[in-house]
Amino acid sequence: MREMVEEKVEEVHVDLGDRSYDILIGPGTQARIGERLRSLGLGGKVCVVSSPPIYDLFGRKVLDSLTAAGFDVSVEQVPDGEGAKSLRTAEHLYDRALATGLDRTSTFVALGGGVAGDLAGFVAATFMRGVPFVQVPTTLLSMVDSSVGGKVAVNHPRGKNMIGAFHQPRAVFIDTGALATLPRRDFLAGVAEIIRYGAACDADFFRYLEENMEALLAGDEDVLRQAISTSCATKAGIVAADEKETSGLRSTLNYGHTFAHAIEAVSGYGRFRHGEAVAIGMVWAARLASRMGICGEEDVRRQVALIEKAGLPTTVNDLDPEELIASMATDKKAEGGKIRFVLTEKVGSVNIYTDIAHEMLVGILSRG
Amino acid sequence: MREMVEEKVEEVHVDLGDRSYDILIGPGTQARIGERLRSLGLGGKVCVVSSPPIYDLFGRKVLDSLTAAGFDVSVEQVPDGEGAKSLRTAEHLYDRALATGLDRTSTFVALGGGVAGDLAGFVAATFMRGVPFVQVPTTLLSMVDSSVGGKVAVNHPRGKNMIGAFHQPRAVFIDTGALATLPRRDFLAGVAEIIRYGAACDADFFRYLEENMEALLAGDEDVLRQAISTSCATKAGIVAADEKETSGLRSTLNYGHTFAHAIEAVSGYGRFRHGEAVAIGMVWAARLASRMGICGEEDVRRQVALIEKAGLPTTVNDLDPEELIASMATDKKAEGGKIRFVLTEKVGSVNIYTDIAHEMLVGILSRG
Repeated sequence: MREMVEEKVEEVHVDLGDRSYDILIGPGTQARIGERLRSLGLGGKVCVVSSPPIYDLFGRKVLDSLTAAGFDVSVEQVPDGEGAKSLRTAEHLYDRALATGLDRTSTFVALGGGVAGDLAGFVAATFMRGVPFVQVPTTLLSMVDSSVGGKVAVNHPRGKNMIGAFHQPRAVFIDTGALATLPRRDFLAGVAEIIRYGAACDADFFRYLEENMEALLAGDEDVLRQAISTSCATKAGIVAADEKETSGLRSTLNYGHTFAHAIEAVSGYGRFRHGEAVAIGMVWAARLASRMGICGEEDVRRQVALIEKAGLPTTVNDLDPEELIASMATDKKAEGGKIRFVLTEKVGSVNIYTDIAHEMLVGILSRG
Repeated sequence: MREMVEEKVEEVHVDLGDRSYDILIGPGTQARIGERLRSLGLGGKVCVVSSPPIYDLFGRKVLDSLTAAGFDVSVEQVPDGEGAKSLRTAEHLYDRALATGLDRTSTFVALGGGVAGDLAGFVAATFMRGVPFVQVPTTLLSMVDSSVGGKVAVNHPRGKNMIGAFHQPRAVFIDTGALATLPRRDFLAGVAEIIRYGAACDADFFRYLEENMEALLAGDEDVLRQAISTSCATKAGIVAADEKETSGLRSTLNYGHTFAHAIEAVSGYGRFRHGEAVAIGMVWAARLASRMGICGEEDVRRQVALIEKAGLPTTVNDLDPEELIASMATDKKAEGGKIRFVLTEKVGSVNIYTDIAHEMLVGILSRG
């Protein structure tokens, strides 16, 4: 049994020179944290950052693995939800870290979704000018996106992720077994990000998803692992080539996200899951590309069809187009007020466009 | 006149691959900021972070240079003094930066001493995951130390610089003309850090300082520029080889500082200037090295003599040795509670020692 489990674990390598690391994907990887951190040469104290519902589910397994490997472990629980991604919560974690005697050799372990990862990662990036950290994502969204690539941040009242850093984890443990307890809506939101990799970067993967969406939604273990590992490998390749989003390559991952951030901001955070907003954002981006004549109708149709097949929303029609546009102009990826749109030229291939006519945008957004 | 001024400007290059930058040293460099930032390809908005007394002295010159080069400049003044190096002040700067519409292409300019540099640098390191920043140090201490090397931080109630990052500036403008208005005590505190470079890293420079201390203290322009540029070049070489203090090389710069941090913490911040504490710290380190038999008496004597010649303190005898030792054990450079001492084996050459007998330390610290 043990061997069978081991066989099912895939490793994806993120190649970043002396900041390289591995992503372990498969059932049971949470139980391997201790031995792996030890083999990475990490030592001393470990601080696990999590939130109550997640910690109740997985905390014991992670703690047992770490203590069995000889680590001195403390646990800091922060509130669940985006509100915890604040400078205030970060400050609380600094206080606790110093009170617990963490030093420059200590490691932070983020156990949870994107909030835990971004928050603990930001604290790790800035505690004593940077200490090691490890991602243990427990939602599909964080498994395929935020846990890989080193973007860490907290929110500011004026916008999400406004205060942050690039700080690569030392390892990522994606335990597919954790998805069994994930609410359906959150699972589907994660599927939206998986579709994004296909639509923006990989036509073969997009076709694979078209052919295997039912199995993915049914939780087929092989398809799930394949979808997650392909997503992570795609992101790993892009991050390796453009770690800090300077060449433009990494911003291709932003497909659907410029619209999504505006949808979330204008609708009020909480109404849509991030992945749901990304789903709508991809539909809008595809339609905009079609309207501009840079993407064929069939490539738009396939994207909309796959998003619908995944049970994700493709539309929202009660948001003011002008408000959405104003929100996009203040997105931190906007430069000098210019919105940068990532648009598909065909399935699996995107490019960046600026200077979209205002009326054309309003037309897309008004249709919902 | 203009040409003469230009001839007197020295440039020291900090070689860090795509994070390389130049340090301009000489009179009038503050007036060159605008053109230089422009030639570096920086554009858009610039936020100058300073404090009232400094801004009153140099703000106009820096602002004129930036606006003449076409930058859209805002100014944020923060309180003077170590208390401003807080997460609270950083938060205020994030608020202001977002209100002013700064984006990922904007640049922070730190105009002031170490507090302005560390604070503005930390904000630049974390605003939108990192934006460019520039150091314009106005104290001798910050010119020869904190403005070079990319260490940025704010303080935590439990310790200085506990929250920070490595974020290299794009350029450093050391205007030696600014030293004319620097209070004498602050000037001498800066001289302590200059002596540190000689004592820890460069026997020839130490001898140069022995021979030219009177001229340096008299403000001789050539000696001043030579002392500053040699200090910066020494630091640049070490930072290039060990940017993030991982190999141990960079920690040689910590000579005198382990004791100094403890002196500052136990005596209460404010009683000693940082450089004064470093002066005492070097004397203690030299005596400890002598007591351990790793450094000859003559090399101790020369260090004490040069520090005295510079009008710096060599002793403090009302601080509790046990308190000092406890403070050193919680220094963020301590690992697993072990204090790491940088000790001279002879003038110009140091090594790191741990496991110093408690009684031996008490003996050194009790003597004051």
